[in-house]
Amino acid sequence: MTRDLVSGGQKIHAPDDLNRLLKEIHQQAMQIHSGKVADYIPALAAVEPEQCALTLTTLDGEVFNVGNTDTLFSIQSISKIFGLMMAMDRLGDDLWQRVKMEPSGQAFNSIVQLEWEKGIPRNPMINAGAILISDVLVSHYSTSKNAVMSLVRNLCGNDRIYADEDVHASEKEHGHRNAASAHLMKSFNNIEADVDEVLDHYFWQCAISMTCENLARSFTFLANAGVCPFSQREIISKRDAQRINALLSTSGMYDQSGEFAFTVGVPAKSGVGGGIVAIVPDFGVISAWSPKLNEFGNSARGMFMVRELANRLGLSVY
Amino acid sequence: MTRDLVSGGQKIHAPDDLNRLLKEIHQQAMQIHSGKVADYIPALAAVEPEQCALTLTTLDGEVFNVGNTDTLFSIQSISKIFGLMMAMDRLGDDLWQRVKMEPSGQAFNSIVQLEWEKGIPRNPMINAGAILISDVLVSHYSTSKNAVMSLVRNLCGNDRIYADEDVHASEKEHGHRNAASAHLMKSFNNIEADVDEVLDHYFWQCAISMTCENLARSFTFLANAGVCPFSQREIISKRDAQRINALLSTSGMYDQSGEFAFTVGVPAKSGVGGGIVAIVPDFGVISAWSPKLNEFGNSARGMFMVRELANRLGLSVY
Amino acid sequence: MTRDLVSGGQKIHAPDDLNRLLKEIHQQAMQIHSGKVADYIPALAAVEPEQCALTLTTLDGEVFNVGNTDTLFSIQSISKIFGLMMAMDRLGDDLWQRVKMEPSGQAFNSIVQLEWEKGIPRNPMINAGAILISDVLVSHYSTSKNAVMSLVRNLCGNDRIYADEDVHASEKEHGHRNAASAHLMKSFNNIEADVDEVLDHYFWQCAISMTCENLARSFTFLANAGVCPFSQREIISKRDAQRINALLSTSGMYDQSGEFAFTVGVPAKSGVGGGIVAIVPDFGVISAWSPKLNEFGNSARGMFMVRELANRLGLSVY
Amino acid sequence: MTRDLVSGGQKIHAPDDLNRLLKEIHQQAMQIHSGKVADYIPALAAVEPEQCALTLTTLDGEVFNVGNTDTLFSIQSISKIFGLMMAMDRLGDDLWQRVKMEPSGQAFNSIVQLEWEKGIPRNPMINAGAILISDVLVSHYSTSKNAVMSLVRNLCGNDRIYADEDVHASEKEHGHRNAASAHLMKSFNNIEADVDEVLDHYFWQCAISMTCENLARSFTFLANAGVCPFSQREIISKRDAQRINALLSTSGMYDQSGEFAFTVGVPAKSGVGGGIVAIVPDFGVISAWSPKLNEFGNSARGMFMVRELANRLGLSVY
Repeated sequence: MTRDLVSGGQKIHAPDDLNRLLKEIHQQAMQIHSGKVADYIPALAAVEPEQCALTLTTLDGEVFNVGNTDTLFSIQSISKIFGLMMAMDRLGDDLWQRVKMEPSGQAFNSIVQLEWEKGIPRNPMINAGAILISDVLVSHYSTSKNAVMSLVRNLCGNDRIYADEDVHASEKEHGHRNAASAHLMKSFNNIEADVDEVLDHYFWQCAISMTCENLARSFTFLANAGVCPFSQREIISKRDAQRINALLSTSGMYDQSGEFAFTVGVPAKSGVGGGIVAIVPDFGVISAWSPKLNEFGNSARGMFMVRELANRLGLSVY
Repeated sequence: MTRDLVSGGQKIHAPDDLNRLLKEIHQQAMQIHSGKVADYIPALAAVEPEQCALTLTTLDGEVFNVGNTDTLFSIQSISKIFGLMMAMDRLGDDLWQRVKMEPSGQAFNSIVQLEWEKGIPRNPMINAGAILISDVLVSHYSTSKNAVMSLVRNLCGNDRIYADEDVHASEKEHGHRNAASAHLMKSFNNIEADVDEVLDHYFWQCAISMTCENLARSFTFLANAGVCPFSQREIISKRDAQRINALLSTSGMYDQSGEFAFTVGVPAKSGVGGGIVAIVPDFGVISAWSPKLNEFGNSARGMFMVRELANRLGLSVY
Repeated sequence: MTRDLVSGGQKIHAPDDLNRLLKEIHQQAMQIHSGKVADYIPALAAVEPEQCALTLTTLDGEVFNVGNTDTLFSIQSISKIFGLMMAMDRLGDDLWQRVKMEPSGQAFNSIVQLEWEKGIPRNPMINAGAILISDVLVSHYSTSKNAVMSLVRNLCGNDRIYADEDVHASEKEHGHRNAASAHLMKSFNNIEADVDEVLDHYFWQCAISMTCENLARSFTFLANAGVCPFSQREIISKRDAQRINALLSTSGMYDQSGEFAFTVGVPAKSGVGGGIVAIVPDFGVISAWSPKLNEFGNSARGMFMVRELANRLGLSVY
Repeated sequence: MTRDLVSGGQKIHAPDDLNRLLKEIHQQAMQIHSGKVADYIPALAAVEPEQCALTLTTLDGEVFNVGNTDTLFSIQSISKIFGLMMAMDRLGDDLWQRVKMEPSGQAFNSIVQLEWEKGIPRNPMINAGAILISDVLVSHYSTSKNAVMSLVRNLCGNDRIYADEDVHASEKEHGHRNAASAHLMKSFNNIEADVDEVLDHYFWQCAISMTCENLARSFTFLANAGVCPFSQREIISKRDAQRINALLSTSGMYDQSGEFAFTVGVPAKSGVGGGIVAIVPDFGVISAWSPKLNEFGNSARGMFMVRELANRLGLSVY
């Protein structure tokens, strides 16, 4: 840990202290009963709602787990980060001609803004932006799904990661709003590939299943200037790690991104499966999972745990 | 300086190095000739357009100046930070019932969003939000202008700071779009005081004149956990300093806020007078001024200088 | 009557038949208890809600009255027709550079569309359009209120018509949404005069009080190719009468205009005071009044009576 | 002819007079060279642009033709009337739970409004509304295309009417904006059938080819209380004819509907193939065709001819 940690006025010296803190916060989170499991597709609605997991990784390669941290869940929008990395790799700065990097100020699936802005999505973290990114992957990788899966497996060091075919099929069947966005972008000539193929990739990617610990491990490189502390490999450049973190800071938490920056103060991304991953540059990654969502589509318990841990450890980057 | 600085692979040891770097960047900025002086009011349009200033303050209390750093200019929207601090002081967390803290995803003066969101502005950095803040000041301080002026003079340690009455009068005469926002909020019962009085405070506040050095000095407390390194006084709590920095990160640079986070990576605020102030937590403040604005209303040379200095010194918080 | 009237398969020969029909319809209307009196200003909220009036004038100069047809009420938006006539008289076709003639597809007081369309209101029947018209009157008549009042008194042959000063003052105090529209149009340079003066005229005009019979008499010229059948004077040209009727057909009944055309089929205008005036070209005018409004801001009983009478007499122009 | 016709102060007695008038107007129209042929699909862009046709039918069964009145062209949006009639026939008043009857106040293909209004299109004449209608046909007729074709052939008494397969295929390939609308409505559960099947019907229907004379003949029943004067068959009830005419009056001419009512004053529908059909109740039908479109998507010469003829003959319903 390169940062000095202070909790309640006391320096935190040892893994034991952190373990105790995580347990305490997890216990408090279990008292929260508000929120509602995403029910727009049966495969998500069927998840046991009271599950709750919290993981902390540090740049030293330490991993702290509390709760259901080895249960697989649908990472949903968190997968947008993987897609973005791969599209940045292929298109470089040209990518930003086709998608902006500005916060959206709208519900995450609004297509009003997409029409105003002539088919250029506001950022890669809203659905339209991630669909645009899927078009880049489909058009620029020979087998886009294999390429994504290979990245994901490498990042979390787990070869058994897969996309849930039930969720994938279900998303496709109920994804008419996303199909609307895709066709609208196509009408503005901002989608190259076949719309159905692009949507298939997008829905597939959302259906990737990971555990809370998988998530934290996978993204620790973003807190470490692009280098994975577990494998010591440079995943992306420091500059790109900072740029992705910047995007997550302004646009990662749906229409609660501003509040998250205000009350927590670190880059983060959530998904409607109930997962949240928060990047703490020069320190580590916090991931949390619990299926019941607040009004903004973010995990109710997850928000509590990430905020509490960040506040108690003084992790705000601001 | 609590951070280690590295520029071009070499550690920066001494004030001389910083001086040299600032001069080099200022010189490069002078080659930029794009942009257009704000001309919506005569008082702004009359400014000599080629002026250019760059200041850096550090937490040690050092101040580095290049160019026209002692010329007064209209700080315009940068004044929104002063208003926000004072409103937070009076209303505490109740403030956030009346203004949100989410990025707007719209041009800074759009009233479409204001109508959609029933008179609750998206954040205190867009005009509608700052007008709402002005209402809080007018309603909760006996003499709101004196209170603001007193804060500003204290912060920059200069008793001769004033608001330019020409600019103030001119803003008022041409401020019909802001008047529209104010009346719209009043129609949603989100303005307490008389609309004309609120607008008068708002336009007055935008007309405050400061120098580039004044600006940097005034805001150094935001980089120092709320404590002014020049006077050693605690201006606000560390928590509030982080929260204000978070707001600036997501919403401080108009509809270029996301790009600024992406390419620079520090909290910042700009004004149509051509000023920019960028907060580097645990390091210091960069302020820049040059009147010609890019398409987003941010100083063209100012953007270059802040970005260049932050990149060269590796200052991104992400 | 230049049209043959048929009700229930039988020709209607005589005034007696019409009297009977109106009474029957009025009686049925009295059974309607839905709706809510406009309560945005106290002066309107205080009206006795169960009042109900129905008048029919014919081109022969006959007048049929049932119910409270000689009670004064606030004509509100119906006054927009008077203003429009006077503005058309002064500006001719140039008027249509400053206000369009297209239906709005929005709630009658939306300012979203006004911003999209750069301060050009969609038509003279939405509030923004009528405020624009008020600007024309204030700018092009030496005393705009006298000019309007003189027209109104002439049209209904009643020199005691006046604007209710309580309503006028009350509208002004609560008219912040209208003020927002006015300032927005001013910001687009589509208001010439002082905004406060324009709004004062607008609110004053809305406060004109008339009886149900007054209303029907005043507008019979629109059903008679521009000639008042009571005074035999040509008020406007046949072409202008048709053009005003066309505007009322597409935009006269707020966001229920399409439904009104579909189910009734004649040009009409309503006001939130509960009045409705319906023009039947080549036949006469139906006016109705009852204060309780439906969700669209149209009198619930008024809508019933006008529709019923028009359907029973087969008056649709389509 | 049940109306007395007057042109230039003189009664028009005889077919010869009408023939002369049509020729004169057609000749004037040929002087108009503004406008641009629809070029969003190759099949439309290839049409010879200078073609120009004008037809007038009367309730006596007379037909007057000038210009290229027997050339087939793509009727495009005019086909929406056929679809509407058939959907009204199947669903009755329940139809209006799924599509409104209000003017849109937006460009004809805007999906912003569709999102605001939760997937309920504003009226059956905008694309989204006609796609909704196509869903009704696909869901409630065993073979929706056959059913439409059979109606169209009957109405114009021509068994060789067909849909152009080139246009159909081309529309489909370039119809991503319409696909976006369809998926958006599906996401709001306002489309029953498979989206692709619905769109296929819609694009097919737009590709129906007719001549100018075909068009006028087909719609004469709308001017004759629902009875076709050529076949003497009752096509729809008088009430439904009036209701369809009302819809055309408020929404038939895209975002020029208000102006058309104002300057012409009769129900009408146009298509981007350059056709216009105008219903004159109790008199007859005017149809016009010329491929070059004005900024609103209405035929430039067509607009001139219809307006001129209606004005010269005094045909406004208002």
